[in-house]
Amino acid sequence: MDRLIKKIVEMQNPTVAGLDPKLDYVPGFIREACFEKYGKTLEGAAEALYEFNKALIDALCDIVPAVKPQAAYYEMYGWQGVRALKRTIDYARSKGMYVITDGKRNDIGATMTAYTTAHLGSTEIDGESVEAFGADSLTVNGYLGSDGINPLLKVCAERDKSIFVLAKTSNPSSGELQDMKLENGKTVYEQMGSMCEGWGADSIGESGYSSVGIVVGATYPEMLGELRAKLPHTFFLVPGYGAQGGGANDVRFAFDKNGIGAIVNSSRGIMCAWTKESGSTEKDFAEAARREALRMRDDIRAVVGEMKA
Amino acid sequence: MDRLIKKIVEMQNPTVAGLDPKLDYVPGFIREACFEKYGKTLEGAAEALYEFNKALIDALCDIVPAVKPQAAYYEMYGWQGVRALKRTIDYARSKGMYVITDGKRNDIGATMTAYTTAHLGSTEIDGESVEAFGADSLTVNGYLGSDGINPLLKVCAERDKSIFVLAKTSNPSSGELQDMKLENGKTVYEQMGSMCEGWGADSIGESGYSSVGIVVGATYPEMLGELRAKLPHTFFLVPGYGAQGGGANDVRFAFDKNGIGAIVNSSRGIMCAWTKESGSTEKDFAEAARREALRMRDDIRAVVGEMKA
Repeated sequence: MDRLIKKIVEMQNPTVAGLDPKLDYVPGFIREACFEKYGKTLEGAAEALYEFNKALIDALCDIVPAVKPQAAYYEMYGWQGVRALKRTIDYARSKGMYVITDGKRNDIGATMTAYTTAHLGSTEIDGESVEAFGADSLTVNGYLGSDGINPLLKVCAERDKSIFVLAKTSNPSSGELQDMKLENGKTVYEQMGSMCEGWGADSIGESGYSSVGIVVGATYPEMLGELRAKLPHTFFLVPGYGAQGGGANDVRFAFDKNGIGAIVNSSRGIMCAWTKESGSTEKDFAEAARREALRMRDDIRAVVGEMKA
Repeated sequence: MDRLIKKIVEMQNPTVAGLDPKLDYVPGFIREACFEKYGKTLEGAAEALYEFNKALIDALCDIVPAVKPQAAYYEMYGWQGVRALKRTIDYARSKGMYVITDGKRNDIGATMTAYTTAHLGSTEIDGESVEAFGADSLTVNGYLGSDGINPLLKVCAERDKSIFVLAKTSNPSSGELQDMKLENGKTVYEQMGSMCEGWGADSIGESGYSSVGIVVGATYPEMLGELRAKLPHTFFLVPGYGAQGGGANDVRFAFDKNGIGAIVNSSRGIMCAWTKESGSTEKDFAEAARREALRMRDDIRAVVGEMKA
């Protein structure tokens, strides 16, 4: 996790831009140009997503440390969309951004090894080695226990990568299972958090945080603070800022006394910023995204203070 | 779920062939031919997976009702591998097989809708409608609660599709979270099972089973029986037969008195059957897969008896 934390401290910006490009979010002039070239096809749609992402990355890469492409929005456009995901990852990394693929992947043993190889590792093809997707980090679901996490830990150690395991998600119904009390007195999400602190124990870096982070929603500020206190080596990925209702005063509980410990995501807020600005048109989408990213950075910095590695 | 159950009863075969094609499992002569044409590249590897799957589907489609491609093994070969997944799904469906994409996908709200559209629905592109992957069923992880399941229920109803939610997985460490006791006296996996019975309540078909199934490992026969009794409308997808150690005497607990209620998966056992047969060579892989599929069918039929719709 040190690589991500270093970037956050350098930029004094603990935020990540979610790249969840529904076709509706892509400005019409980009869509039209791509449809003209490739037709109203999965290929045309995928090309539009990539062009949109590329312009957003150009507008954000010197002020925002990381991007988080959401796999679902690429799969929705078939293998052509998945190719746009790969191109997006490559482009963001070429611009120095830390890439967190939001895939919430989960499986066991050899199959989890395959997901790990796909998203964080290198695929061997008869002696040749190639990165299938090559992100820096992957979100995962820990419901299956250690068998689903161990293959990730190995690659995190070997290749300086990280993971974020779902603990307390930002959605209204997250509590149906996650808030249930176990006989040991913990809730399910606390139990998941403790398991993550354990899984990370051997990978604590200079920053004091391990390569195993967790996802905790900005929409549950009390739980953020409670988990921050209980999980001192676990870095947090915090969705739910902005469009889902969380604000700076909610997310501040995720940070430690040095102003680190968390990265806060905004997707629609940044991608669709031009629609909220009076006087902006779709042609201004990239500049509006940059303005919103700066506003969000300053909003959070105002409550968190200076970030010290 | 009625469509799947009808196929099972027609073929008197409650099994599904897992298509988890690691490149190592693909016979050398297929690999070599594809590398010659496309190089030792992701494209070459993906082509080899598809050729392997195609031959397996040809060998199985008149005796096995369903296939279950595991998404991880396709993602491992990049977008080219994901294209091979799409081609595999199309080919299996063209041969009349029911396709369960094993993706264990999970997310919330609009993002879960995107996964649903990707795997079970139709993607709209400026008025054009196209199936991105077009499977009949998808495995999902229910950790996020109803927000992660509702988008699936809608598409299951509209397009006669089904889902399988992870309850008690087949791996050794599944109990770390899933077996924990809640204050209400249930284990986490029982709670998940109950939630699934609830999510399926509005989609119970002629068979008596809803469109919301669960995944329960053959490696935990007692839990299979216990869940079978408690969840009368929930169909089971049962991994863990064969390579993972489960046998017919273990999986029988998953079936109801009419011999239905479950479908049992075998992946490596079928894909790599030729390696276990004395006298077989890699050229015999498809015939050997068929022989193993028939042996597995008869093995399970011997303990379950006739399947009556």
